[in-house]
Amino acid sequence: MILTVTLNTALDLTYRVPALTPHASHRVTQVIERPGGKGLNVARVLAALGYETVATGFAGGATGSVLRDLLAATPVRDELVGTAGPTRRTVAIVDTSTGDTTQLNEPGPTVTADEWTAFRTRFTELLDGAAAVALCGSLPPGIHVGAYADLVRLSRAAGVPVLLDTSGEPLRRGIAARPDLVKPNADELAQLTGSRDPLRATHDARGRGARAVVSSLGPEGLLAATAEGLWRATPPAAVKGNPTGAGDSAVAGLLSGLVDKAPWPERLARAVALSAATVLSPVAGEFDPTAYEELLPRVKVTAEPQAA
Amino acid sequence: MILTVTLNTALDLTYRVPALTPHASHRVTQVIERPGGKGLNVARVLAALGYETVATGFAGGATGSVLRDLLAATPVRDELVGTAGPTRRTVAIVDTSTGDTTQLNEPGPTVTADEWTAFRTRFTELLDGAAAVALCGSLPPGIHVGAYADLVRLSRAAGVPVLLDTSGEPLRRGIAARPDLVKPNADELAQLTGSRDPLRATHDARGRGARAVVSSLGPEGLLAATAEGLWRATPPAAVKGNPTGAGDSAVAGLLSGLVDKAPWPERLARAVALSAATVLSPVAGEFDPTAYEELLPRVKVTAEPQAA
Repeated sequence: MILTVTLNTALDLTYRVPALTPHASHRVTQVIERPGGKGLNVARVLAALGYETVATGFAGGATGSVLRDLLAATPVRDELVGTAGPTRRTVAIVDTSTGDTTQLNEPGPTVTADEWTAFRTRFTELLDGAAAVALCGSLPPGIHVGAYADLVRLSRAAGVPVLLDTSGEPLRRGIAARPDLVKPNADELAQLTGSRDPLRATHDARGRGARAVVSSLGPEGLLAATAEGLWRATPPAAVKGNPTGAGDSAVAGLLSGLVDKAPWPERLARAVALSAATVLSPVAGEFDPTAYEELLPRVKVTAEPQAA
Repeated sequence: MILTVTLNTALDLTYRVPALTPHASHRVTQVIERPGGKGLNVARVLAALGYETVATGFAGGATGSVLRDLLAATPVRDELVGTAGPTRRTVAIVDTSTGDTTQLNEPGPTVTADEWTAFRTRFTELLDGAAAVALCGSLPPGIHVGAYADLVRLSRAAGVPVLLDTSGEPLRRGIAARPDLVKPNADELAQLTGSRDPLRATHDARGRGARAVVSSLGPEGLLAATAEGLWRATPPAAVKGNPTGAGDSAVAGLLSGLVDKAPWPERLARAVALSAATVLSPVAGEFDPTAYEELLPRVKVTAEPQAA
């Protein structure tokens, strides 16, 4: 099974309004509730692809109960650990006149030392039997900035390949603990390395300790620096739609290729095709399976000469 | 005791953000959850003034449970009736750079015929022992537009004075059932009567069946057309602040005066002073008790010659 970790899960609310006007009052015409947080998004995509998937992290309060009820309706196995504080909400306000989205994210509950200890125990138990683990998203208040580094070390000690997808100081510390794979986007890379040059920054990030770095170049695809070589993966054509969740789908694609022991070009093709199929889906964060099957053989993966 | 009815209760969320920018992503710096809906706001003010207060209406789902937990921490007695659908949320986004508020209101659950029947039975039981009843706010989906007219008739049959504070067709139908008091604002009056002249519209509204009409003129105070005479009540000075809940506080003032059998000028003074003390309060929807005591003797109430 594939294990995904979401320390700051969220009850994602999507509100459709005819037009968002600051300082006005709006009737919401449609409300959608979904289990959210990057690791849960990754888990949902993996489960939809047919992989046995387990989700852990934290959930608490009334919002946490709703999240767990919604998760129970999916094939993802719920191994979330309880918190006294309530799970945060995120609100995505979709302006139906323009299609644009305005996002509001609550900070999340403060996790106590005892709750972190309970999580760490559960995580260690779940590593036994995991083919791969993904550590995804921001840290909730109360969790120390080296938490991901700690979880990377536990995964490596258990011999389970570990992917880290976060930003800022938790990424900096986490990379130093030598994860198998990190998947930064351009902003995260620039924050980590100080460089906006994708090739230079990707190499630099790998030099900081990650066994492989797959950098997201947005609509231009992915750039991968690995022990086996350097690749670029590009979607067959520009896709138009909602990019929400495209990065999480790329992570799911990389994990599926990892557990299937697929060669790097195949892993990258899956990641790019899933990402594009997510942008194309009418429902934010879902992928279009037909588009995925159609795009997969058309992703262009090219080996680049090893610089640096 | 005083009974308040809120058919479309809400879990009111207030999100503070440094600045609201459409199409951007925002970290919410503070989240406040409160039991909401106009009748619950009225009940909270009455309870703070020391009146025994009972709240009925509907609540359901996880949001309804949170609302009831929050209500349990107040002196208001909870006599809400359960619904299968979840209680709606409202989100008030406060831009802390300007103080302006952007409001998003979910529509609310669809109330079934059986749930309405259960509510009607509870309402009839609660009328026994009520000194006054207030019917407040919008109707949730599924409830017939004549619902308030029905509740007005039940109240009158039980000999309990009834105040109606709603808008649109539910107000039009409700007024025809002859409530003791309606409290429209300028927009509601204009929608009901077609006139933007406060005096003419207030008389017209009274002619439609209400025993008394107290029209809210916003910062200029109230205009009351009653069987005992016509009055204007004006705050001592313009007050600056957040008008959220000011109308609900005015309703609480009118009800407190009604159950105390105070003369009309005293009732209107309480309504205007409570309304102004709510605008002045730093917390939206709460009133400042010191400001209330200080403002009360300074509200100017003048009898006007009976026209029409």
